[in-house]
Amino acid sequence: MSINSFGRLFRVSTWGESHGPAIGALVDGCPPRLALTEADIQPWLDKRRPGADPLSSPRAEPDRVRILSGTYQGRTTGTPISLLIDNVDARPADYPAGAPPRAGHADAAYQAKYGLRDPRGGGRASARETAARVAAGAVARLVIPEVRIEAKAIEIGGEADPARWPELIRAARTAGSSLGGLVECVATGVPAGWGAPIYAKLDAELAGALMSVNAVKAVGIGAGFGAARARGEDNADPALAGGVTGGIATGAPITLTVAFKPPASVPALGVTGRHDPCVALRGAPVIEAMVALVLADHKLLHRAQCGDGA
Amino acid sequence: MSINSFGRLFRVSTWGESHGPAIGALVDGCPPRLALTEADIQPWLDKRRPGADPLSSPRAEPDRVRILSGTYQGRTTGTPISLLIDNVDARPADYPAGAPPRAGHADAAYQAKYGLRDPRGGGRASARETAARVAAGAVARLVIPEVRIEAKAIEIGGEADPARWPELIRAARTAGSSLGGLVECVATGVPAGWGAPIYAKLDAELAGALMSVNAVKAVGIGAGFGAARARGEDNADPALAGGVTGGIATGAPITLTVAFKPPASVPALGVTGRHDPCVALRGAPVIEAMVALVLADHKLLHRAQCGDGA
Amino acid sequence: MSINSFGRLFRVSTWGESHGPAIGALVDGCPPRLALTEADIQPWLDKRRPGADPLSSPRAEPDRVRILSGTYQGRTTGTPISLLIDNVDARPADYPAGAPPRAGHADAAYQAKYGLRDPRGGGRASARETAARVAAGAVARLVIPEVRIEAKAIEIGGEADPARWPELIRAARTAGSSLGGLVECVATGVPAGWGAPIYAKLDAELAGALMSVNAVKAVGIGAGFGAARARGEDNADPALAGGVTGGIATGAPITLTVAFKPPASVPALGVTGRHDPCVALRGAPVIEAMVALVLADHKLLHRAQCGDGA
Amino acid sequence: MSINSFGRLFRVSTWGESHGPAIGALVDGCPPRLALTEADIQPWLDKRRPGADPLSSPRAEPDRVRILSGTYQGRTTGTPISLLIDNVDARPADYPAGAPPRAGHADAAYQAKYGLRDPRGGGRASARETAARVAAGAVARLVIPEVRIEAKAIEIGGEADPARWPELIRAARTAGSSLGGLVECVATGVPAGWGAPIYAKLDAELAGALMSVNAVKAVGIGAGFGAARARGEDNADPALAGGVTGGIATGAPITLTVAFKPPASVPALGVTGRHDPCVALRGAPVIEAMVALVLADHKLLHRAQCGDGA
Repeated sequence: MSINSFGRLFRVSTWGESHGPAIGALVDGCPPRLALTEADIQPWLDKRRPGADPLSSPRAEPDRVRILSGTYQGRTTGTPISLLIDNVDARPADYPAGAPPRAGHADAAYQAKYGLRDPRGGGRASARETAARVAAGAVARLVIPEVRIEAKAIEIGGEADPARWPELIRAARTAGSSLGGLVECVATGVPAGWGAPIYAKLDAELAGALMSVNAVKAVGIGAGFGAARARGEDNADPALAGGVTGGIATGAPITLTVAFKPPASVPALGVTGRHDPCVALRGAPVIEAMVALVLADHKLLHRAQCGDGA
Repeated sequence: MSINSFGRLFRVSTWGESHGPAIGALVDGCPPRLALTEADIQPWLDKRRPGADPLSSPRAEPDRVRILSGTYQGRTTGTPISLLIDNVDARPADYPAGAPPRAGHADAAYQAKYGLRDPRGGGRASARETAARVAAGAVARLVIPEVRIEAKAIEIGGEADPARWPELIRAARTAGSSLGGLVECVATGVPAGWGAPIYAKLDAELAGALMSVNAVKAVGIGAGFGAARARGEDNADPALAGGVTGGIATGAPITLTVAFKPPASVPALGVTGRHDPCVALRGAPVIEAMVALVLADHKLLHRAQCGDGA
Repeated sequence: MSINSFGRLFRVSTWGESHGPAIGALVDGCPPRLALTEADIQPWLDKRRPGADPLSSPRAEPDRVRILSGTYQGRTTGTPISLLIDNVDARPADYPAGAPPRAGHADAAYQAKYGLRDPRGGGRASARETAARVAAGAVARLVIPEVRIEAKAIEIGGEADPARWPELIRAARTAGSSLGGLVECVATGVPAGWGAPIYAKLDAELAGALMSVNAVKAVGIGAGFGAARARGEDNADPALAGGVTGGIATGAPITLTVAFKPPASVPALGVTGRHDPCVALRGAPVIEAMVALVLADHKLLHRAQCGDGA
Repeated sequence: MSINSFGRLFRVSTWGESHGPAIGALVDGCPPRLALTEADIQPWLDKRRPGADPLSSPRAEPDRVRILSGTYQGRTTGTPISLLIDNVDARPADYPAGAPPRAGHADAAYQAKYGLRDPRGGGRASARETAARVAAGAVARLVIPEVRIEAKAIEIGGEADPARWPELIRAARTAGSSLGGLVECVATGVPAGWGAPIYAKLDAELAGALMSVNAVKAVGIGAGFGAARARGEDNADPALAGGVTGGIATGAPITLTVAFKPPASVPALGVTGRHDPCVALRGAPVIEAMVALVLADHKLLHRAQCGDGA
């Protein structure tokens, strides 16, 4: 219900602004007795972290996560898990209070909605918020050990050959521009039966979860937009469905495709600051995290209605 | 929260099986004092109705809606509005209890989830459930008179010229096959500020809502999948964003594209019964209804947090 | 979330006005494969039914329930169960549109909230709505066969001896007045561990559920208000806690006490119509139903987080 | 929905254990542009704080709150407000891992539910969690400036004369015992129309909110349990209803009574540690906070459905 929370039973609430003192995630409803320490979360954050490779934003955030509650002697207790990540390289002074809304950003929309906004790097609208998603997603993975989730960029700037991406990204940065891209995500091991009909359909919730990631403009499952040109008999091929029929997992791999638009924080639009020339690369761990959150929630939802053995 | 309900504040729950006695929608949270009678709902149902044109399923359902509660002297009272549509042309005998799951359908997934299933025409998984969505969507429209929503098929079977669709659909039916298609939906008049950040993003909720419609396999907003091949400076064009930035409406038209797969109920897959050879045509009113439901909910959500004048 | 729904996972939404065509309950999230026909529900409705004994309202409602969805061959399918009860003895003409708000009733409050109201017998605020709760509660009982719930009046008009109640009630009716009463409810067989901490505490949710019943003004668990005069060492007696500590069931019987105020529909306040001179008697089945709804929901909630075997 | 969150639109999630590094509250859905700094919250925490008077627990917690997100230049931005309170005087070593469950506490129930528990001072079940409620309640007060909420103990150990309470409490402590008490809360200025029918009744939600406070065993509104002995004509007295009819505020003061049981942490039950001999005194600020949370949520809920002017 609340606008900064995600999930029904495995429920994550995130908070924090890009240039405030810290960001965080609160994980509620986690099953008890799972082994969990910071070491289970940190590697996933490291994959998403800015400054980790020369093609991403130069903002240097160590993104060290601390667990403030919800565990005892390295095990989850079933109570809320509070995760906190300090903002180390925040530079609020880079963003003066009176700055006009930046083109292609959420600045104007936030202003229209709230009548004021935190101008410091987009505030809450910054992609920095996705670090909290990744931290929560790492906990979600512990809930669904039977599932393997892997996302990767499959196209950058229209180019499918990864060997050419560094060159394209450097050229875009040099030109004061940025690039979009496609990310593919496959979840294997999802048991047949997870999911739910009608308004909690597994594919619907995955689509909503992925579209909630900054810069995502389209989501497809299975054949995706290609399904519009398929014929009835193509339904015999499970790849068309992509692992979900009627909103319920079939047991086949769940395949998703996501389109990221190019970042608007580019000199070509008059926007300065430290930003990524392509978010699709760093977006893959975020996509994985969101898929993990949806699946963990649906595992619990399925168990609630149908029991462990169903 | 519940799996057969949709929306937070303007909340719709639907019920009913394809070949049971009736289907229905329960609308909760509707503002009071809106003029509402069956005549406000029926025209939208008539647009979706099977048997209305020779290219759709021959099932003859008048889809007459009755309002059983929530109004007094033709005005909403703020209490739940119960809408009921009798199933007139149900033929449960067409679907024997022991029939095997149909290829490409949700039959096997329902069986895996629940350990039993209603085999009568797909039961709850039938596209007949979407009539209840359309009825509820008609009420939602009354909540958002400032908004105009229009969806239409823009491609059938890979063909963009509507003049050729009847021919293609008839050919597919004759061949025992079926066709997919693309539907475009535009919502104009959505005030800047509706929507919400992070997990209740307007585009995320629209994507989830549309992906929950039977046979939808992909959803895009603005440039959709095309955004993956845009460059940073293209963000200057509002069409890229499609009316939503940071999850919040900008005031520009909201543009959505949806891909419908071809129905699996085709002789080529050994499935008999009365079905549509292409659902994209009849799907447009359902898409409109879902968009109306999302927007009505977000109007109330925005008013809750930010007040009428914000 | 929605205002006419109850429960998280085993979720009930009710609808209908006292003098409209029908009332109903929609049950979502029910586990599949439970044996369920109208015969499982009707006996509970018969216990609550008006006109069943000479001490209650003379309104003659057969309260026959119909199951419109969610079952197949006498078993629940896991999809929404739509229950409908026709209003047979409605007399809308008894309640003219321009009638002033009745003293002690919700009429004025509804008018203040919604700017209009359904004047026909209190509309949605009528105790008739509780029939829908009882119908849903009957389904909830099937979800928790391990639990036995029994509520009974223990005091009417200040008198604890049931032998004197008929006389007191008749005297109150003759005097144009009405009586309050106390109802006690005991739930045995609730497994230790059901419930949840902090904001979903089992006792908190029971208190909320019971206070939502028309005319209830107080709720206590265990020692109830008597706990205010207990001493620390009395905590050694499990009766003080009443079966719940820290919001979680201990395995001991859960004991609740509820106070019903006297109905305000009395000639002494200038209110005519067909009403009960004491609702505590007919309220007991409603109390049982609400307890069943809370416990069914918490059984599923516990199973979601902790698994079947926990 | 989630078990550690409270409220629909003005939504609070709390986290933290009694002897962990910190506790906190996350406030989501707060209206934007409200003036808010730590100075608006701290005074309310100071009222609840242990060690503030010689009759309460000797645990010395300064309870300094920090706002980590959701404000900019001293105003709320509409994004989540993360509140953090460090645990300064935690003594985890006082609570060895293998300690048996304490009589009258939630220890055994947590163990039954989760299969493990944090033994350090009750972990999450500690009344220390209520500091987070008070912090969130301070924010809620800013949302409802039209309302005045005051709670106070009206009876301790069966004694209504406050002059005698210090003596009674000291005597109980000396005897290794503890005392229960009654707290009364009055909310004035609640506009007629706030609240909602049926399952979101204002009195039902207040009852649930107050019963969720540690050690509360009974809640009454208006005449409370006294209503059971009233007669129909007493409904003419607004004090019977206590400011709510049909679940909706009438505009009259809302009056609530709450019973606290005596703490079980007493030498007479073999429990050592630093504890309160009577929680009713320190409970009053917590009761106020919960009432503020319910009312803030209902203000937004009412505005959502009925608009600002309704």
